[in-house]
Amino acid sequence: MNYTLNNIPTRDAKPRESGFTMAMDKGLSLREVEDFLEVASEYVDIVKLGWATSYVTPNLKEKLALYRSAGIPTYFGGTLFEAFIVRNQFEDYRRVLDQYEMTFAEVSDGSLDMDHEEKCKYIATLSEQVTVLSEVGSKDAEKIIPPYMWIKLMKAELEAGAWKVIGEAREGGNVGLFRSTGEVRSGLVEEILTQIPFEKILWEAPQKAQQVWFIKLLGANVNLGNIAPNEIIPLETIRLGLRGDTFSYFLNMEKPC
Amino acid sequence: MNYTLNNIPTRDAKPRESGFTMAMDKGLSLREVEDFLEVASEYVDIVKLGWATSYVTPNLKEKLALYRSAGIPTYFGGTLFEAFIVRNQFEDYRRVLDQYEMTFAEVSDGSLDMDHEEKCKYIATLSEQVTVLSEVGSKDAEKIIPPYMWIKLMKAELEAGAWKVIGEAREGGNVGLFRSTGEVRSGLVEEILTQIPFEKILWEAPQKAQQVWFIKLLGANVNLGNIAPNEIIPLETIRLGLRGDTFSYFLNMEKPC
Amino acid sequence: MNYTLNNIPTRDAKPRESGFTMAMDKGLSLREVEDFLEVASEYVDIVKLGWATSYVTPNLKEKLALYRSAGIPTYFGGTLFEAFIVRNQFEDYRRVLDQYEMTFAEVSDGSLDMDHEEKCKYIATLSEQVTVLSEVGSKDAEKIIPPYMWIKLMKAELEAGAWKVIGEAREGGNVGLFRSTGEVRSGLVEEILTQIPFEKILWEAPQKAQQVWFIKLLGANVNLGNIAPNEIIPLETIRLGLRGDTFSYFLNMEKPC
Repeated sequence: MNYTLNNIPTRDAKPRESGFTMAMDKGLSLREVEDFLEVASEYVDIVKLGWATSYVTPNLKEKLALYRSAGIPTYFGGTLFEAFIVRNQFEDYRRVLDQYEMTFAEVSDGSLDMDHEEKCKYIATLSEQVTVLSEVGSKDAEKIIPPYMWIKLMKAELEAGAWKVIGEAREGGNVGLFRSTGEVRSGLVEEILTQIPFEKILWEAPQKAQQVWFIKLLGANVNLGNIAPNEIIPLETIRLGLRGDTFSYFLNMEKPC
Repeated sequence: MNYTLNNIPTRDAKPRESGFTMAMDKGLSLREVEDFLEVASEYVDIVKLGWATSYVTPNLKEKLALYRSAGIPTYFGGTLFEAFIVRNQFEDYRRVLDQYEMTFAEVSDGSLDMDHEEKCKYIATLSEQVTVLSEVGSKDAEKIIPPYMWIKLMKAELEAGAWKVIGEAREGGNVGLFRSTGEVRSGLVEEILTQIPFEKILWEAPQKAQQVWFIKLLGANVNLGNIAPNEIIPLETIRLGLRGDTFSYFLNMEKPC
Repeated sequence: MNYTLNNIPTRDAKPRESGFTMAMDKGLSLREVEDFLEVASEYVDIVKLGWATSYVTPNLKEKLALYRSAGIPTYFGGTLFEAFIVRNQFEDYRRVLDQYEMTFAEVSDGSLDMDHEEKCKYIATLSEQVTVLSEVGSKDAEKIIPPYMWIKLMKAELEAGAWKVIGEAREGGNVGLFRSTGEVRSGLVEEILTQIPFEKILWEAPQKAQQVWFIKLLGANVNLGNIAPNEIIPLETIRLGLRGDTFSYFLNMEKPC
């Protein structure tokens, strides 16, 4: 840090299982990736190339190499997995993962209907090839999944081999974990946490108010994702109680979390 | 493309009359233009230097040269045309277009009251010098133009020499084609399309929900404009059915459009 | 300017006491700062490193040097001052200002409760070391300060040695001067201006509608702050009546302001 402030919440060091930040790259140029890494490489744990943007970005190999050389793993958004599945191209998808030397992959069913046993089979199969993040929650605002079902799905996916489960929010932060206004479905989150270990969940929380809500509920070291590249530094200050939103929160605690 | 997905909507190749994407540059640095071109040059057909930002940007000649060398034409936003007109400086405007070697120009009346015959005369005169895009719709949220009038104005402007007509939305996407909430005036759009050829219209649609709406109504190859530079890759995925919003839309069609 | 338009509002030249623009850097990389300066150095008077982002940005010394070499002063956001105060580290804060050769500092109490005499003492003490901007208004949307109190606080802080007083709005533009919807508390602003000189106030106005409101009320040369780096060019066009929002405003005046 650039100077010393007392009583700052302790952050786990990378590589870490909690306090994990996932950023979303939705089409950065190579130089923009370099700029992003200069500022944020210490704070970002993994980068998602949003949904199927990797299909159209012209600099894919070079971009993946840049992230790799900074020690930051990457994965393709779950919608890409779904785009292959819906076309009966699962084996092609596996070859693409190899071709681009991916070590992580996301399994999701946010844009299609998939039998949950089938989803778990995909998780199990891909887990032999890469580390799998699996996502629960629909991108369709009409499909409300009740809490007990979120828990059942998450448990099954972790058992099938998922390294972490992701709570869906989209880039906009207005579905899945959130109401269409962006408000957190707080009862849902609290009920999930009675059954699923804190560090196994990566909460998508693109909006600042959502990040603040999770940090106030779960502390500086909650796993958060879908963070825009230029919001990584702001998020880190929120985690540390150094932005207005969480300024008094950490100070009022008996000991830093 | 970086890998093969079956059954992806076909996109016309550049230069194209439809499936056209217009991006808005509201003050990029030269290096930011290079970054933008690295990522998006294949997907962008034309770049507008938003409203009169060209008056204050310090790097104008160099910026225009960068776009030119990438084969992407540029034009100054219609508000600049209006700023010259309202000051009785039309001849100065024509000289500015020559001085900066512009091959396109926009004629609009979004911020002033102009007799429509006069507007069409400007379109005709400028058409001898450059390719003209003309814009219909007010920037004033209070001025609601009824559909039959949109059609009448668009027809007259195309007859006067406009290459394409633009449906106004501003950078915010909250006037003209859209209600103040950003919602599309869908009846208006559908009525316009009964009379004006699809490929002659460039719809300003800065918000994602607006882009999705037009693509679902008119297919992958609708002309869309006022796209922010970092939203070009996301837009291309929406056109291709590779983002959640249009994921099932194209799959459910008998054949790709 | 790149070409000549008649009857454009006159802008004071830098260094200036009014018509002042404060930009907020919330974590730019060095190259992004260079890009920002290329485009905006003529239009920006001072840059705030937002809240306590300076604690976590890895490139702090180099970034400050870049701004310095462009002749643009910088200061750390008021939340950093408060973070030191709440930890009883005021002397450490003063050393940090020296260590980084800061010539400006902000004194605020947006995130904590501070006796106003104590705040004025901090202003007086820091004024011996640097030029002080002091901020009035809470970051807490629940704490509504009535107009007479804003005036009393601002007067006392200017008397204590503040160079300018800042009207609080946060990065979001939804507290202090503004209602939670972003709407200006216009009666508040007008009452303040009956007592405090125009050029002594820096209004935080991150949203475009807010900038437009202040420019329509107070003219091209109002002091505005919390402007995002990529909104500096757009703001300059609004000041000059070259964007739709203020297009007719300046034209209708008897003489340019």
